[in-house]
Amino acid sequence: MSKGLPKRSEDYSLWYNELVKRADLAENSAVRGCMVIKPYGYSIWEKMQAQLDKMFKDTGHSNAYFPLFIPKSYLSKEASHVEGFAKECAVVTHYRLKNSEDGKSVVVDPEAKLEEELIVRPTSETVIWSTYKNWIQSYRDLPLLVNQWANVVRWEMRTRLFLRTAEFLWQEGHTAHATKQEAIEETEQMLDVYAEFAEKHMAMPVVKGIKSANERFAGAEETYCIEAMMQDGKALQAGTSHFLGQNFAKAFDVKFATKEGGLDYVWGTSWGVSTRLMGALIMAHSDDNGLVLPPKLAPIQVVIVPIFRSEEELEAISVKAKEIMKKLRALEISVKFDNRDTHKPGFKFAEYELKGVPLRIALGPRDLANNTVELARRDTLSKESVNLNEVEIDQKIKGLLEEIQENIYKKAFDFRTEKTTEVNSWEEFQDVLENKGGFVSAHWDGTSETEEKIKELTKATIRCIPLDQEKEEGKCVLTGNVSQGRVLFAKAY
Amino acid sequence: MSKGLPKRSEDYSLWYNELVKRADLAENSAVRGCMVIKPYGYSIWEKMQAQLDKMFKDTGHSNAYFPLFIPKSYLSKEASHVEGFAKECAVVTHYRLKNSEDGKSVVVDPEAKLEEELIVRPTSETVIWSTYKNWIQSYRDLPLLVNQWANVVRWEMRTRLFLRTAEFLWQEGHTAHATKQEAIEETEQMLDVYAEFAEKHMAMPVVKGIKSANERFAGAEETYCIEAMMQDGKALQAGTSHFLGQNFAKAFDVKFATKEGGLDYVWGTSWGVSTRLMGALIMAHSDDNGLVLPPKLAPIQVVIVPIFRSEEELEAISVKAKEIMKKLRALEISVKFDNRDTHKPGFKFAEYELKGVPLRIALGPRDLANNTVELARRDTLSKESVNLNEVEIDQKIKGLLEEIQENIYKKAFDFRTEKTTEVNSWEEFQDVLENKGGFVSAHWDGTSETEEKIKELTKATIRCIPLDQEKEEGKCVLTGNVSQGRVLFAKAY
Ligand SMILES: [Zn+2]
Ligand SMILES: [Zn+2]
Repeated sequence: MSKGLPKRSEDYSLWYNELVKRADLAENSAVRGCMVIKPYGYSIWEKMQAQLDKMFKDTGHSNAYFPLFIPKSYLSKEASHVEGFAKECAVVTHYRLKNSEDGKSVVVDPEAKLEEELIVRPTSETVIWSTYKNWIQSYRDLPLLVNQWANVVRWEMRTRLFLRTAEFLWQEGHTAHATKQEAIEETEQMLDVYAEFAEKHMAMPVVKGIKSANERFAGAEETYCIEAMMQDGKALQAGTSHFLGQNFAKAFDVKFATKEGGLDYVWGTSWGVSTRLMGALIMAHSDDNGLVLPPKLAPIQVVIVPIFRSEEELEAISVKAKEIMKKLRALEISVKFDNRDTHKPGFKFAEYELKGVPLRIALGPRDLANNTVELARRDTLSKESVNLNEVEIDQKIKGLLEEIQENIYKKAFDFRTEKTTEVNSWEEFQDVLENKGGFVSAHWDGTSETEEKIKELTKATIRCIPLDQEKEEGKCVLTGNVSQGRVLFAKAY
Repeated sequence: MSKGLPKRSEDYSLWYNELVKRADLAENSAVRGCMVIKPYGYSIWEKMQAQLDKMFKDTGHSNAYFPLFIPKSYLSKEASHVEGFAKECAVVTHYRLKNSEDGKSVVVDPEAKLEEELIVRPTSETVIWSTYKNWIQSYRDLPLLVNQWANVVRWEMRTRLFLRTAEFLWQEGHTAHATKQEAIEETEQMLDVYAEFAEKHMAMPVVKGIKSANERFAGAEETYCIEAMMQDGKALQAGTSHFLGQNFAKAFDVKFATKEGGLDYVWGTSWGVSTRLMGALIMAHSDDNGLVLPPKLAPIQVVIVPIFRSEEELEAISVKAKEIMKKLRALEISVKFDNRDTHKPGFKFAEYELKGVPLRIALGPRDLANNTVELARRDTLSKESVNLNEVEIDQKIKGLLEEIQENIYKKAFDFRTEKTTEVNSWEEFQDVLENKGGFVSAHWDGTSETEEKIKELTKATIRCIPLDQEKEEGKCVLTGNVSQGRVLFAKAY
């Protein structure tokens, strides 16, 4: 089982890949860059989806579904969008196969060539705004608050499970508004939703900020993002929310009759998170024994492992286990009783550690005699014996799950604090990036040239201009030119 | 609004198309054959998904996700599968675009040609069984009970919203078993799940049966189906469950170590329902005023429409409405209060009729004075005044929603009974099909030739060999040859 999981300290990247496979989260498929999300991995993604979907609906959004295919010509309608997006993507050119002449295989039917090629969506702004043109006539049709859960394809050359795959799953929100102010508020609201989800549910602290022009979404006026820190000190962009201005409305001619009797272009936003969050979740918390999952996203929150030698012992333990399960389920705590007789307790312990189950209950004949259980926490790997005469087991476990959720967050938060460094000279900048890693907070002169130069020299990019930054004048860490405030640099996934 | 919705009796097909568009369920997109599912339509699909997903999980299945793309060569591995499926599908041949020479558009980069073309999945048996090969080694890995919610593409020439679209949404279950018996039981269990969903949740009676060889899924040993009757007397296949035998296991070399120490091919099943169910739901129940939705699948179960002349009247009504809403929500009844002052009550009544909201509450100043409300049922279009001093409104509405659910089912059931005819001669067969329509129960000699001949002559196909058929010998309605029992014929969607 977890025997032989590589150590983070020795090879972080190998540790990650092996963990994803051994914990049954995902694997590569026969199609280059496309992954298979295995049932256990998918059940974590389902918990993420359910929570995010609830938060989207609570903020007034509805789901809809738009086509997988985009006519090639749509991509060129918004000029900067095509520059940033259209290139590496799957192109459908034909719509029929036929039997080969020897009858043993199928070949593309050359007569079934599409007049216009179709692109498998890399993102859906173009197809959605071409639809919104028909949905929006007047201010009464606004705001339009729509989200889509979908698969998208970007033909990546170097792929990694969850972090960068050719096909991935995501949600993309696309909203339309009557005023610039309202669209900006929506953009910021959804950034807040993402940040709350990351911090409260994934137990992963994030920095909210704005992207520099270089890193902005193709077609956006402003890109907001949340940035998280992984255990190797690298940054991971965990979600983005774009203020699109009137760019897509102009590209697709979406105008509305204003309250005042005029005619104006609609203001837009788009925002998304993807199965990349699975990668973030894994890399933010897990350890050399396997996954560490925050209880709020763990498909199994509690596992009960019986310790038995005979059928009779198992039966007696089962009675007790079922009592406990009933109490836990009444509190909506998910619990599994692993009564397989094909595997030893030690094997099971290692398996649930690998899979990140937050709490393990071991229950043996001595426990029955003493009316105790042994509780083991996944986050701290600590154990305690609990006397059921003294403690309400369901309340105890409820409390522990909350404690674990907070502890995982705190650990990640402290790590990030420790790995965030303010630097004031170029030497310091290079030294921290090379030797300490993490986020580097430094002054920057605001130009794309400097940003690119720094990337060339150090591989670090501007992760974001943090929103809650204090105003502080200074001098650019590379050029010495005047700077309006610090920005966060880091090497990133 | 509903003004001008065509009548079913005059043009059923036009009525359907117009209803789908006007009730905001779906519309055609710019990509031929691909639909946009609009927010209201999608919210009904979400209710279907949630219920089905629960039923799949209750029967032990987990969700997973497999790639959108299938290598072309996979399709030829199962011989009859490629015959039935591989032909009309979207083929990805390139993975990059580049700027055109004039810089104004994008063109396919001829240098980015794939070595092997990729097919956008029309169904996932091949890619899933190629994965199962790695997941299954021993009987301990079985049964493998996996479902996937996904989009699929079949390049249809003639498309209709929900009923037949190039891209559609569906779920596909793919299970693997150690024994033939267990796989057959799984196939039958999932057919029962579909039938229960159709009858209890969609309020749509279905006939469970087996497909004739002609209509069998490509690669299956046996295809089970549920068949529903639409209001125009045509049949609609609402779900299928396939016993795959060892066909895909053999095609993809999936063997397992048996308990007894041998090595055997795995037994498989697959089963699916799609957004086609939306079409079935609409056509089974709706009327000339619009949608009729069974309460269990209605996104809004109750709407409260205030009748007011002044701001003060609206305020007083709002207080009462909020009281009622609170009580209904405590019973998990979804309720909307439409307090828009931009539309008159009559307009709102028509709108919610069009959208199929099962119950409407009208609340005016006279109701406040008398402590009454007016309740209107969508299914019967009947109204009653209810005195809140005498009746617990929440219990009254809960009861009515159950009654509506049952009534919609009963109406469809009675219609189907009336439109199902036993015939014993070829003249009768033709006459019933031509003049009465519906299901025709007739003897058939069991040959594909006769089945095809009947289709040529009448456009009717064998919908299924019903499972709960009495054994009855007879003579084939066309050939007079010996028959083992009656089968159901109908014209179908
Ligand atoms: Zn929350
Ligand atoms: Zn049910």
